[in-house]
Amino acid sequence: MKEFLKVALLGPEGTYTHQAAEKYFEDLEPEFCSTIREVFESEVQKKFVPVENSLGGGVTDTIDFLREYDEEVVGEVELGIQHALISEEEKISDIEKVRSHPQALAQCQELISAHGWTEKESNSTSEAVGDMGAGEAALASEIAAEINGKNILEKSVQDRDVNVTRFLVLNGESEAEEKTSLILEPGEDRPGLLHAMLSCFAGHQINLSHIQSRPTKEKLGEYYFYVEAEAAGEKLQRAEKCLETYGEVQNLGSYPEAEK
Amino acid sequence: MKEFLKVALLGPEGTYTHQAAEKYFEDLEPEFCSTIREVFESEVQKKFVPVENSLGGGVTDTIDFLREYDEEVVGEVELGIQHALISEEEKISDIEKVRSHPQALAQCQELISAHGWTEKESNSTSEAVGDMGAGEAALASEIAAEINGKNILEKSVQDRDVNVTRFLVLNGESEAEEKTSLILEPGEDRPGLLHAMLSCFAGHQINLSHIQSRPTKEKLGEYYFYVEAEAAGEKLQRAEKCLETYGEVQNLGSYPEAEK
Repeated sequence: MKEFLKVALLGPEGTYTHQAAEKYFEDLEPEFCSTIREVFESEVQKKFVPVENSLGGGVTDTIDFLREYDEEVVGEVELGIQHALISEEEKISDIEKVRSHPQALAQCQELISAHGWTEKESNSTSEAVGDMGAGEAALASEIAAEINGKNILEKSVQDRDVNVTRFLVLNGESEAEEKTSLILEPGEDRPGLLHAMLSCFAGHQINLSHIQSRPTKEKLGEYYFYVEAEAAGEKLQRAEKCLETYGEVQNLGSYPEAEK
Repeated sequence: MKEFLKVALLGPEGTYTHQAAEKYFEDLEPEFCSTIREVFESEVQKKFVPVENSLGGGVTDTIDFLREYDEEVVGEVELGIQHALISEEEKISDIEKVRSHPQALAQCQELISAHGWTEKESNSTSEAVGDMGAGEAALASEIAAEINGKNILEKSVQDRDVNVTRFLVLNGESEAEEKTSLILEPGEDRPGLLHAMLSCFAGHQINLSHIQSRPTKEKLGEYYFYVEAEAAGEKLQRAEKCLETYGEVQNLGSYPEAEK
């Protein structure tokens, strides 16, 4: 009998997260959650969350929860994303309102502006398909149109073809240690502190593939940094020691780089 | 006869942006827009946009449009924000769903989680009040409850008291030059380039009060930076010359620091 792997991820069925998880895990048994917070709070140990999109930037909820919760990053995967314009209507001219997840709406602004449609935000692209009424359309995966038995009015309607989302795999075994996710919390607010902290990476010849500033939520203008360093093991430990002289460092885990 | 100043800003009436603009401009004649993009595309020259919130972080639409459109930053203002829980219902126990702008929902997660309410995103806090049905509540300003004749079930329901939003004033005269907004576009992706660019500020002893990475939308992992430097005039020009040796620099304007 085949063993299936339980993984908590953003649902419902047919979201891009679901599609990406199917690509990464061989025998996936998805545990669908309705928000990223629920994924982090799920009792299912293994989790799968979006962290970055080539159009929308860092997924701020994921980054804030990585800082807040005690999870270990053990892998990453990239998925090219193509939104379809889905509706019960049969003509684009009958559309007045378009529903989707905020990031998908952000990724199809040229189409939305050209038609002057009103936007409605949903918790997921696939929920948007279920919520549609008359005169409405949704931006979601082609699979979501099939599952819900709706029309695909136009395929690949995103602003640019370069729409790629990167996901992180949380908890379990890591297959290799190539890169490392870190949370940096500057100990004070003084001129040049970020520059000084980055000198720890530059000095040890470590490239950063990602840096994102996020508010500490304590005071306007007070930020922490989520970074991904292209190093692990002893080399990274030296950089960490250097960083600790400037503030707090949280090592979230080392993992292999995603296939491009 | 008194002259009123036309300013394009995020509407409708009663949003926090409206409240902040009333605080900054003496004789405001607001031109309400329904999205931040519409504010940037408005024919009204003077514009007023949110740029940063102490809980949500950088307002990514504003930052992307500052890079894309040809506007000049001439001022900033800060506003302390308190959300009220507003409803047609009279008891909190009758609420099942809560509506608001995504940032306001993000700022009241403790309340929402504690009650297990479903979330619905609106284009503005004040639109959320108008959209409410039975069993629903909205998170918005107390003024919005008054304008719409609804009940305030609880005041100041945000997660923390430190909820401050900073706004930028675009175009017109600047009253003083204390700080400067810049867009930095690294010319290549190589180890230590961000560190090298920041060395131009550190070397000229200029503090950065804000730094935000945003995707160039060309390729996953390719970022530009929006920074605010606590300098202007000749001192800043020296840093700019240094920065130009590493990539492209767009000076968005110098302006006085907001009163705290």
